Amino acid sequence: MATLNRIGLAGLAVMGQNLALNIAEKGFPISVYNWTTSEVDETVERTKQEGNLPLYGFHDPESFVHSIQKPRVIIMLVKAGSPVDQTIKTLSVYMEKGDCIIDGGNEWYENTERQEKAMGELGLLYLGMGVSGGEEGARHGPSMMPGGSFEAYKHIEDILLKVAAQVPDSGPCVTYFGKGGSGNFVKSFTTGLNMLIAEAYDVLKSVRKLSNEELNHVFSEWNKGELLSFLIEITADIFGIKDDKGEGYLVDKVLDKTGMKGTGKWTVQQAAELSVAAPTIASSLDARFLSGLKDERVEAAKVFKSGGIGNIFTDQAVDKEKLINDVRQALYASKICSYAQGKNLIRAKSIEQGWDLKLGELARIWKGGCIIRAVFLDRIKKAYDRNPDLASLLVDPEFVKEIIDRQSSWRRVVCLAINAGISTPGMSSSLAYFDTYRRDRLPANLVQAQRDYFGAHTYERTDIPGSFYTEWFKIAKQSRI
Amino acid sequence: MATLNRIGLAGLAVMGQNLALNIAEKGFPISVYNWTTSEVDETVERTKQEGNLPLYGFHDPESFVHSIQKPRVIIMLVKAGSPVDQTIKTLSVYMEKGDCIIDGGNEWYENTERQEKAMGELGLLYLGMGVSGGEEGARHGPSMMPGGSFEAYKHIEDILLKVAAQVPDSGPCVTYFGKGGSGNFVKSFTTGLNMLIAEAYDVLKSVRKLSNEELNHVFSEWNKGELLSFLIEITADIFGIKDDKGEGYLVDKVLDKTGMKGTGKWTVQQAAELSVAAPTIASSLDARFLSGLKDERVEAAKVFKSGGIGNIFTDQAVDKEKLINDVRQALYASKICSYAQGKNLIRAKSIEQGWDLKLGELARIWKGGCIIRAVFLDRIKKAYDRNPDLASLLVDPEFVKEIIDRQSSWRRVVCLAINAGISTPGMSSSLAYFDTYRRDRLPANLVQAQRDYFGAHTYERTDIPGSFYTEWFKIAKQSRI
Repeated sequence: MATLNRIGLAGLAVMGQNLALNIAEKGFPISVYNWTTSEVDETVERTKQEGNLPLYGFHDPESFVHSIQKPRVIIMLVKAGSPVDQTIKTLSVYMEKGDCIIDGGNEWYENTERQEKAMGELGLLYLGMGVSGGEEGARHGPSMMPGGSFEAYKHIEDILLKVAAQVPDSGPCVTYFGKGGSGNFVKSFTTGLNMLIAEAYDVLKSVRKLSNEELNHVFSEWNKGELLSFLIEITADIFGIKDDKGEGYLVDKVLDKTGMKGTGKWTVQQAAELSVAAPTIASSLDARFLSGLKDERVEAAKVFKSGGIGNIFTDQAVDKEKLINDVRQALYASKICSYAQGKNLIRAKSIEQGWDLKLGELARIWKGGCIIRAVFLDRIKKAYDRNPDLASLLVDPEFVKEIIDRQSSWRRVVCLAINAGISTPGMSSSLAYFDTYRRDRLPANLVQAQRDYFGAHTYERTDIPGSFYTEWFKIAKQSRI
Repeated sequence: MATLNRIGLAGLAVMGQNLALNIAEKGFPISVYNWTTSEVDETVERTKQEGNLPLYGFHDPESFVHSIQKPRVIIMLVKAGSPVDQTIKTLSVYMEKGDCIIDGGNEWYENTERQEKAMGELGLLYLGMGVSGGEEGARHGPSMMPGGSFEAYKHIEDILLKVAAQVPDSGPCVTYFGKGGSGNFVKSFTTGLNMLIAEAYDVLKSVRKLSNEELNHVFSEWNKGELLSFLIEITADIFGIKDDKGEGYLVDKVLDKTGMKGTGKWTVQQAAELSVAAPTIASSLDARFLSGLKDERVEAAKVFKSGGIGNIFTDQAVDKEKLINDVRQALYASKICSYAQGKNLIRAKSIEQGWDLKLGELARIWKGGCIIRAVFLDRIKKAYDRNPDLASLLVDPEFVKEIIDRQSSWRRVVCLAINAGISTPGMSSSLAYFDTYRRDRLPANLVQAQRDYFGAHTYERTDIPGSFYTEWFKIAKQSRI
């Protein structure tokens, strides 16, 4: 073979094709391979259309691997689970000591660490790299979270820095994350933000009957301020799109049944494992579960309607502009809680695993490319710049000020929803989280007393150090006589 | 040896001692054994004091096992994990085909199933049996949840029926649960009820400044009605107990920092695994996590106080009797939600594992012995008697009526707490759960539209069957031009 290519990419579904084109476009000659050959030809065809980029297709794994310069680096973009195992098996037989495989898919971090270990025994390096930003991001600039072998990262740092989303003033959306499966772990993390936005929509639409035109306008306006973000932007877009199959707007025809993905489940399970409260994130998962029970919900609505509970009590007396303003504030305050929980969760995992993740840096690389990109992330980065050991985002001076300014609106929105008979599980659990966290004395003293009463679990006192046990039952029985 | 004993028990911490004494007292001669011999002697000594019960101590495993009639049945009451493994190893070498080991501890169900399989290879039978009711229950009548080998269960059914708590009109609190680790699984299940009670206490004490005397009276009254239960009873007791180390009441001196146990974590993780929404139970776990951050909370309280958010806004204008009544109703309605979630979780697990658990029977055996015993369980049993395939307790006609009667109080209490600046995470997440479940149309349509927009996840429509994909971005871009 004449010239060897700088890098290889295996797995040519849309994400893989787009990332390969992105790499080639940035001037790095790339070899591509896929289990089934038609995707290889398709990718090569796209390359021609997009201007003869330095991308070369291979139909067999051996010539694919041998077409790459040593130490070889191959990015895999295949489904998590057995496709990952299979691809590694296929490619690694042709690879040599010092070569590297990068899993750019959504593999669970423990599997990544298992692979890294197995590859290490063959003398191969391994990286698990979360790639965020969907198809568009992969093609034009994703946010990337490589974790694992630092040596391997250094081999392709120059490529990643160019391929990543570029954000003015904060640089390329990629950084070396840390050891082990940290990059995959962080990618599998969810925030529950889309559910919070859905609640804002619900309050405006159900309580105050805003039209889709009005909602389109409201979210467009919101996207000019503190809420500026990819999710708010696409939400505004969505309200503007007419139904192509009938009258009215498309959003009203979409079934209210949310699909599942594993990441919400993982996040909630990890939070429980790590003893981190993450109610905002959990409420978003529960909302998915309940939305899935469409038939049961339709039945339950009938049962309670006939029992005298109407679905929703609209309140046209509420001042529209004031409500829109209140909902915006409630959404923003809830968002702070969601991120506070998420950051604490990632920190707890980093400590458990010894990953030494930098929370501020993590916020920086999400500013571009990925679907959670938002101006808000800049505030988070600054909070951790001010104090890397911040116990919670909630007590950063800037966020404290923002929450104090918004708390009245927040309480008004949640109570309005409760009285209207609609649920805002994300906003209300965020508020409960805030009101619990900022409280020096909780009613947990009663729970401890109960536990000591029925299970002799012992308790601590507020005034005397040590561990105490009281024969509650015996004393109570005596005093009852 | 002259006569062989009917059964054996290994592991003589308090629970084991008490259960052994209970079995002996019911007329079944029992051999007991412990790794360290002092507990054996202590148990024998207690037996003498309590009236020469047929209980016999052994200092070595061989003579212990050989003192039991064949087929031998040995109940183990040792800590979950390696003590279980070690005890099985020690005893099984002296046991013979057809003999049976019962794990009466709090082992995780997957370990129970692993043990059952390993024992099966030796020709031994195995049961995992949740034992509920604490020390008192073990001594005078626990609630027991045996699962695993039905053959083994039949060997000791006569003993269990006599040893269990006896509830008038509904019989002994024991039943054969099902295959595998079902008995251990159900025991590891938590309800979050103690947190709901703590919230009721918090509202009454913080918002309306009820004294401990008043709280003692309120909970005593509540324990005469629909809330009658072990937890309400001990809560009333707790408010009546004076501090033995200073002025005032003991409950006010107990530190508001709740200890952890694994069961809440397991329940939340299983709920996520099984796609069952369980926000009431999860909120109780989160409350534990947050209560544990005492130092952080004290700091956060200072930060927000100086920022102008006082801890609590008390409201003496609220009518006291009306508030007490509202809080009782809110507590009861939230309790229904908690049990609805718990039952659905157990049902989902039973389906996943093929355990075929009977939800009504399960409510019945908790009526005595264990700490969740409550008149309420009778209503649950009746709900499942009326309809074994009930989708949720929330739509049982009797519960529907009860919720409708209570919903105004429930909404008032949660809003009062929100406006007072205190959190009722359990009650508010229960209310959100209810308001979500009884809603035929949720804002999940927006979430699905978002997912299709950024990830091409496709969506269903309300009016046309099939799966749809829309190029939201493209359409929105065109319309923006």
